[in-house]
Amino acid sequence: MTLHLSLVGIGSGNPDHLTRQAIRALNRADLILLPRKGSAKADLADLRREILAEVLENPATRIAEFDYPTRDAATADYRQRVEDWHDAIAARWVDSIAAHPGATRVALLVWGDPSLYDSTLRIATRLTPRPDIKVIPGITSIQALTAAHAIPLNEIDGPVTITTGRQLRETGFPAGVDTCVVMLDGECSFQSLPPEGIQIWWAGYAGMRLQITDHGLLIDAGPRIIAARAAARAAHGWIMDIYLLRRQGEAQISS
Amino acid sequence: MTLHLSLVGIGSGNPDHLTRQAIRALNRADLILLPRKGSAKADLADLRREILAEVLENPATRIAEFDYPTRDAATADYRQRVEDWHDAIAARWVDSIAAHPGATRVALLVWGDPSLYDSTLRIATRLTPRPDIKVIPGITSIQALTAAHAIPLNEIDGPVTITTGRQLRETGFPAGVDTCVVMLDGECSFQSLPPEGIQIWWAGYAGMRLQITDHGLLIDAGPRIIAARAAARAAHGWIMDIYLLRRQGEAQISS
Ligand SMILES: C[S@@+](CC[C@H](N)C(=O)[O-])C[C@H]1O[C@@H](n2cnc3c(N)ncnc32)[C@H](O)[C@@H]1O
Ligand SMILES: C[S@@+](CC[C@H](N)C(=O)[O-])C[C@H]1O[C@@H](n2cnc3c(N)ncnc32)[C@H](O)[C@@H]1O
Repeated sequence: MTLHLSLVGIGSGNPDHLTRQAIRALNRADLILLPRKGSAKADLADLRREILAEVLENPATRIAEFDYPTRDAATADYRQRVEDWHDAIAARWVDSIAAHPGATRVALLVWGDPSLYDSTLRIATRLTPRPDIKVIPGITSIQALTAAHAIPLNEIDGPVTITTGRQLRETGFPAGVDTCVVMLDGECSFQSLPPEGIQIWWAGYAGMRLQITDHGLLIDAGPRIIAARAAARAAHGWIMDIYLLRRQGEAQISS
Repeated sequence: MTLHLSLVGIGSGNPDHLTRQAIRALNRADLILLPRKGSAKADLADLRREILAEVLENPATRIAEFDYPTRDAATADYRQRVEDWHDAIAARWVDSIAAHPGATRVALLVWGDPSLYDSTLRIATRLTPRPDIKVIPGITSIQALTAAHAIPLNEIDGPVTITTGRQLRETGFPAGVDTCVVMLDGECSFQSLPPEGIQIWWAGYAGMRLQITDHGLLIDAGPRIIAARAAARAAHGWIMDIYLLRRQGEAQISS
């Protein structure tokens, strides 16, 4: 019996980011797998439960919570550690599904869009036999950021690079573009750049009730953002943030 | 009286891409402006009407169709031509709104997400007095592409560049990244690249009923895509397509 696995993008923290397609996919599932990720992320697990409470109408759909495994800090190699961890998560899925005989349509709620800096798709492809995988797109945190500021992502005909905090620290402002978006950055890595001529549009909890934003020249806004981020993180126990950097390009100077 | 303008991302051609937030915003509008873009794009105008027919429940919401101005080919400078055209569109909006006295909450349906290669936001900021602008994010064609192929956008921790067909032709494969997404490409500009070591994931009408996809080494898939694109375009009178290119990077070779 083929396992049909739906990876359902739920958007970036606003339950109203849910699409009609996502609502349908959840209501078609026999079983929805819901991770418990530990108390620091309780808010986020609650959001998933809130979403399900609001949109699930199919009484036959069951929900199975499972505990997330922890990464084995003893494994020195970063890639190997991630691989082992993905295997462990896949094993939890298999156990949860096995505990619900007859469940062939299984759904997982994925933060934002399943294609963007998320491992669910990679984990799904390591199940054997390989399931039939369907991806339901969701609103990404990039779009939550640009919507919060009501700004275009790109300049006219201009390219944009999406990157991570680590990459920004290691390689600086991406080559060949005037705009980049930085995600997965726990360290305000914009501090590693020479700030001259760069503007920043920042959002914490983008699209969510807690949303906070700032915008300005990096040289002015950078220190404000570092302080606001630390305060918000202390107040709520967690933060997710994202920002767009734009440097004064040739085009802008001449226009 | 302040004009409240909502730019509502409607997703990339699948009416089920609509979010709950978008549905709410449309139902809150006094007036929805609907462009008529000429017969070649009649399918797309129909899609907007279909969406409104399905989700509008507020009997007070009125719909105003307006004709799109054409770009003045006599203006030699590209940027100036675009600026003039945006001014002309803004003037049509103003006329349509003036024809509906009392309409203060006005919505526009924007293809995909309003932040991504779309001029609506730029047009909105040239209205005077400047309206209160709210952006409702929508599913982009990038996400429709990755969902169609059930693939991640990025490699683990890897950067991604979003670019246009014109940029790809002028500057080649973007620097510093192994993955790029190409949009706004009427010419299959991947042909300008040396194809060795590049994979392509392509989709026409991504997420729509007409969706067609192909994937493979660029050297094999490229010619197939050129033929499929031409045939589809001839059959339907229009096509929108998008693709992801990934080159064999250091990381992939070593893992
Ligand atoms: C593991 S990635 C998942 C991204 C997700 N799949 C998406 O489509 O946005 C987590 C990162 O996304 C960003 N992020 C996700 N949700 C966010 C939000 N509501 N506000 C700000 N940043 C967010 C942060 O940069 C965070 O470090
Ligand atoms: C003017 S841009 C608008 C992009 C839109 N705002 C978005 O979020 O995707 C139009 C380009 O988007 C891409 N596109 C939009 N919808 C598409 C679809 N359903 N399938 C494939 N490509 C699409 C094509 O590359 C097209 O040339």
